[in-house]
Amino acid sequence: MLVKHCVISALTRSTSHSPSSTVLRRQQFLVRTLCASRTHLPKLIKAMSSTSEADAESVLRTVTPTLDPKRHKGQAGKIAVIGGCREYTGAPYFAAISALRIGADLSHVFCTKDAAPVIKSYSPELIVHPVLEESYNISLHNLYVLLSGFSEEEKRKVQDKVIGEVDKWMERFDCLVIGPGLGRDPFLLECVSKIMLLAKKFNVPFVVDGDGLFLVTDSIDLVRSYPLAVLTPNVNEYKRLVQKVLNCEVDEGNAGDQLRSLAKQIGGVTILRKGKTDLISNGEIVKSVSVYGSPRRCGGQGDILSGGVFETFSPSESPAILGCIAASGLLRKAAALAFTKHKRSTLTSDIIECLGESLEDICPAS
Amino acid sequence: MLVKHCVISALTRSTSHSPSSTVLRRQQFLVRTLCASRTHLPKLIKAMSSTSEADAESVLRTVTPTLDPKRHKGQAGKIAVIGGCREYTGAPYFAAISALRIGADLSHVFCTKDAAPVIKSYSPELIVHPVLEESYNISLHNLYVLLSGFSEEEKRKVQDKVIGEVDKWMERFDCLVIGPGLGRDPFLLECVSKIMLLAKKFNVPFVVDGDGLFLVTDSIDLVRSYPLAVLTPNVNEYKRLVQKVLNCEVDEGNAGDQLRSLAKQIGGVTILRKGKTDLISNGEIVKSVSVYGSPRRCGGQGDILSGGVFETFSPSESPAILGCIAASGLLRKAAALAFTKHKRSTLTSDIIECLGESLEDICPAS
Repeated sequence: MLVKHCVISALTRSTSHSPSSTVLRRQQFLVRTLCASRTHLPKLIKAMSSTSEADAESVLRTVTPTLDPKRHKGQAGKIAVIGGCREYTGAPYFAAISALRIGADLSHVFCTKDAAPVIKSYSPELIVHPVLEESYNISLHNLYVLLSGFSEEEKRKVQDKVIGEVDKWMERFDCLVIGPGLGRDPFLLECVSKIMLLAKKFNVPFVVDGDGLFLVTDSIDLVRSYPLAVLTPNVNEYKRLVQKVLNCEVDEGNAGDQLRSLAKQIGGVTILRKGKTDLISNGEIVKSVSVYGSPRRCGGQGDILSGGVFETFSPSESPAILGCIAASGLLRKAAALAFTKHKRSTLTSDIIECLGESLEDICPAS
Repeated sequence: MLVKHCVISALTRSTSHSPSSTVLRRQQFLVRTLCASRTHLPKLIKAMSSTSEADAESVLRTVTPTLDPKRHKGQAGKIAVIGGCREYTGAPYFAAISALRIGADLSHVFCTKDAAPVIKSYSPELIVHPVLEESYNISLHNLYVLLSGFSEEEKRKVQDKVIGEVDKWMERFDCLVIGPGLGRDPFLLECVSKIMLLAKKFNVPFVVDGDGLFLVTDSIDLVRSYPLAVLTPNVNEYKRLVQKVLNCEVDEGNAGDQLRSLAKQIGGVTILRKGKTDLISNGEIVKSVSVYGSPRRCGGQGDILSGGVFETFSPSESPAILGCIAASGLLRKAAALAFTKHKRSTLTSDIIECLGESLEDICPAS
């Protein structure tokens, strides 16, 4: 997921100032891309070589931005996680803190009022906005509604308020991660659908994971043909996607082609299918990442890199693919490193602690 | 308690998928058991040798699953702790985090609304459900009741809601730990009784500790003859159990036989009597574990391994016994290790930090 972010966000963010118009950012990106292509092309070609197994380390070196003292806060990445509800608070934290651990400058979380104090308590590094609402909460928060019954009008009012809170920030973000710990409250998911439309309006790239995939699987048009959308399903989430979109079962014997068809069917969004070997496709090419890794399957690894943000000047036509490859490679390296230290007791937090060392090992900051 | 979990959960969990039917899981287990028995039998016989002191390390090696990169999240264990109220939040945390530190993939806590934010804040690794209700809380949460007074009907409504929240998850769990930090609120305990019935309906194994034992001692039929129930009383909890079930006092001179009679009297549930030497019986055999250990008696050690989850392919007819032996041995080793590091200042958290190293020392992950 990380690298998906990386490159996706790179599409819009590479020279971002806060605040600056998406259009301007995109123009600047194109210019830098052309300049950059001269220096990065050889590496890149190697990375995208015809072998289906990608050269993850080479891609990571390609997409990781050089640190520049002349830059100011925000230029190395401003991301927002949309997730965190009454039940789930760990997932959005893992996504948001991973972004910072990988080099992002600012990491926001938009969650429900219940989840906010808890997520804040995990780390003072995050900016947490308690703006989302769950059905059960609306009636508690609103005596009028409690007595009069929950009207459609009331519902719309609350919804508009939620969207308004996200709207005023949206333009500043370089990438969203939608879904970690989102839960499945119908009212909440309705709001998140509108947040996706908002992101598309501003051309803000987004990665969809966890409960965000539950939403998208039921309303595939939310992401259809949006080139800046990346889906990162695990085994079960992928199964539901295949059943819903391709009307068939997962075909392990033909995994690559099936993934390509799925991505193509959804209009060329990029999909990272997580597994023992990660498979990545945008409907055209298919790449795999199987280096490193750990046998531990503790919950949270799926979120761990959602928040990762890199800057890339990649001239590739499929930056999202590069993003996925780098994300997959880095998570796997960090997980492997954490496992050597903690063995069976390895937890997601231990893997996050290894992100920096793993990245430094692949592409030293100086 | 750990090992009880281990083996108990193993009964249903060894090849569990999320979600998958208990029946399927149990069938899969039986198959794996048969396959495994060939390789594990020699070790096992040694472990179950006629000496009353068990070979805890050998049992641990027997019940600890080998890590398999082909597995996906959840297959190494999904457990849930039922506990955590307005007063107590540490105990359920210790139980749930220990499960993860010992190799489980997912660890849930079902607690009261007051306890949830606190338990969540201890660690982003846990999934905490704020669903239990205490008497004092019900009227606060319900305006109608506040105005009309608390009726039996209202009480039932709230109870049904609580059970419903647990019901929708129950089938996914491989083992429950019922009791850590539960408190003694009558309404809450009434709900927990129904949760036990629910677990039995789904054939989900459960370990009963702390205030769960207070509940069970007063309503012994809740666990009578349930083969997947494990009780883990400390000195005082054991004393009450003996008085209630055997109508006599604890007979230290005849501890083993008395424990056997107690377990037999409750229909063959497994009991781990915690003490300087841990005694374990299922109404037939009696085993003891006295290796390692620490002179520190800081609160929380009783909870520390409740959450532990292992996978075992044990062909034994008494996996719960093996579970108890392994749990007892591992906790004692971790406690001993923590004491060498922290001496008088050793806390339960320090012991949890030593679980991974202790387990690795006994059966290396790779």
